[in-house]
Amino acid sequence: MENFLKKAKESSSIIGVLSSSQKKNILNNMADSLEENVELIINENSKDMSAAKEANLSSAMVDRLLLDKKRVESMAKSLREIAALKEPVGRVIEGWWTDDNIRIEKVSVPIGVIGVIYESRPNVTADVAALCFKSGNVAILKGGKEAENSNRAIAKILQNVLESNSLPKEIISLLPDSSREGVNYLIKQDSYVDLIVPRGGEALIKHVSANATVPVVKHDKGLCHTYIEKSADFDMAIKIAINAKCQRPGVCNAMETLIVDSQIAKEFLPKLKEAFDKYNTELRVDSRALDIIDAKEATDEDFDTEYLANILSIKLVDSFEEAIEHISRYGSGHSEAIITQNYTLAESFLNRVDAATVYVNASTRFTDGGAFGFGAEVGISTNKLHARGPMGINELTTYKYKIYGTGQIRG
Amino acid sequence: MENFLKKAKESSSIIGVLSSSQKKNILNNMADSLEENVELIINENSKDMSAAKEANLSSAMVDRLLLDKKRVESMAKSLREIAALKEPVGRVIEGWWTDDNIRIEKVSVPIGVIGVIYESRPNVTADVAALCFKSGNVAILKGGKEAENSNRAIAKILQNVLESNSLPKEIISLLPDSSREGVNYLIKQDSYVDLIVPRGGEALIKHVSANATVPVVKHDKGLCHTYIEKSADFDMAIKIAINAKCQRPGVCNAMETLIVDSQIAKEFLPKLKEAFDKYNTELRVDSRALDIIDAKEATDEDFDTEYLANILSIKLVDSFEEAIEHISRYGSGHSEAIITQNYTLAESFLNRVDAATVYVNASTRFTDGGAFGFGAEVGISTNKLHARGPMGINELTTYKYKIYGTGQIRG
Repeated sequence: MENFLKKAKESSSIIGVLSSSQKKNILNNMADSLEENVELIINENSKDMSAAKEANLSSAMVDRLLLDKKRVESMAKSLREIAALKEPVGRVIEGWWTDDNIRIEKVSVPIGVIGVIYESRPNVTADVAALCFKSGNVAILKGGKEAENSNRAIAKILQNVLESNSLPKEIISLLPDSSREGVNYLIKQDSYVDLIVPRGGEALIKHVSANATVPVVKHDKGLCHTYIEKSADFDMAIKIAINAKCQRPGVCNAMETLIVDSQIAKEFLPKLKEAFDKYNTELRVDSRALDIIDAKEATDEDFDTEYLANILSIKLVDSFEEAIEHISRYGSGHSEAIITQNYTLAESFLNRVDAATVYVNASTRFTDGGAFGFGAEVGISTNKLHARGPMGINELTTYKYKIYGTGQIRG
Repeated sequence: MENFLKKAKESSSIIGVLSSSQKKNILNNMADSLEENVELIINENSKDMSAAKEANLSSAMVDRLLLDKKRVESMAKSLREIAALKEPVGRVIEGWWTDDNIRIEKVSVPIGVIGVIYESRPNVTADVAALCFKSGNVAILKGGKEAENSNRAIAKILQNVLESNSLPKEIISLLPDSSREGVNYLIKQDSYVDLIVPRGGEALIKHVSANATVPVVKHDKGLCHTYIEKSADFDMAIKIAINAKCQRPGVCNAMETLIVDSQIAKEFLPKLKEAFDKYNTELRVDSRALDIIDAKEATDEDFDTEYLANILSIKLVDSFEEAIEHISRYGSGHSEAIITQNYTLAESFLNRVDAATVYVNASTRFTDGGAFGFGAEVGISTNKLHARGPMGINELTTYKYKIYGTGQIRG
């Protein structure tokens, strides 16, 4: 393992200075090669599929695992899109002359070696490898056990392209020891690894955060709220609430709790319930809402739960302050929205709520690299530092200061 | 302790939304109050001074500890300068409209609760408190045992100003349990603390990095190189080398190793030695340089040592590549310089050397918040993520995305 990490680290100085056009060409080569090797990929994937069926994985999980011709083509398409993104390395973030007449440029540079730990869908292997490559980083990938054969085939194809371009294969590789011990070793190698990105269940993220000495950018849970303030346009509020909860209930930017101004509850809640009933959403509401609509009563635990399912908690509040307090207490700092026509409250909500993404009059579902226009994303960071919210290729870079002198010394 | 941290966390939503003018006024009040209480401060400081003398601390350490009228005035001046800095919160870093016609603004916001662990000089207490306050953060300060009475007096004065402005005193406080156990507890409280900044010896930084679950921005060692490429102007090279080594040998941006092109060594080294002899610098040189000048022979350990003293290692190299390799092997990623008149090599050095600050034709001593024009600094980060190099008030902020919609839902 140490030898492997050493080679990974050494490779980072090679990938780190590849030109933009070289990286583009190689990523397009990789896309071609995935398509050329579609049979091989499907063949290896079928081993994972049989194992999954034997292990009685849920049909949803088995479906996420499946690779067919269309999915391999879509993997290749994603690589070509990443290839076409604007070069993330070498952006001049700021620049100025100092009092000593030296010129300083703050310039984006690759982070170095990035370890990404993820689950299930094998297309993540190609996507994350490509995002790291585009941003000049070495990628060490640790996918789920259930996708082992598929991931190995994909990584091998990408590595062959690297080698045919005279680049070390360590620029993209699977973690050689993919056991729990292997992961525990990896997350402590701060002399070789610059960043760990864990994507997956709460237990994994907690374990990695607690034990890593390498910096971690977490992709943790989203307990997102939408607050219907009394001046809200009811039709807009209902349309947004339905979208935030029902479009894809299993994702981190889906809404879990709707907060409703008590002054409008009598008029608003029946309309809301009517709309959610069409989506068979289970409503769990506080005791005051229970007087207005027929639903299950919410417990305190409900307000603290990321359902990731078609279930919605509803809370009535008597004031803007109470809404802010509820969000501050239960929110996970991911995505929080207010629906309002009141300018002052809209501004106050955006300024005061402490979350990666704060919304006025839009669905929380927009917290996404694609929707933000980033092209592709490594994930959605719930860290406050380095990267917050959708994490695209620019968030896979750090910066250095370049200083242009003409013989200056410090006085 | 938990109760204290809870209050600190709660206070962060108050300081986080204070207006720019309120923060300015309060910082100026704090400066006034330090000057008004100069006798109290000197009185408390004298207790630390006697203890230091009793404990036989070095005269340098005792001097760093001393507070007299002039030093208190300079502390107050520093607070007024921080008050006058450009507001770091609410800067629009980027902004755009997406394909869904929502408007996104990426805006700087405070980090939250910041723990700073530092040593010796009591003025750091006022400085760091002010930098955190200006950037809208709660500061938990853990100074050195030797400055305990001074730090307590300073913190109390700042807290009184907070309270007379109807703000919770927890916005600025000393860590209540300043023992090793107290620090170990603090660095694991990721639900209350958002960032730990350790400044101090290698052992402290290693311990904090290894044990913290709170994100850490390290202020670690600087093993800085200056490479005299063969096209360098000799006079400029010598002037810069002397400044980088001798102006303040004990700081992290001082040079530790000089790398000299072997093609110019015969002519250059005697001149260099002559210059350094005037500063009584101890030279430790590799075997080839030993054939040219009279000096001590350098061991491999020398090249791996941050002397923090008036000692310089000298290494001859046969090529630009060899210089880059030496820096990549021994450098700490802090500050690295090339002295050259060759355009191509200058550019290549700036692009390829992986360090927070890379220089052409200037002294590494400029890696400093003041010299960069940041006004004041919390320290110099050796992290790659979040903040790299000099860390001013802008680096004490993170960002959020504000999303302005008109009823958008995800398609």
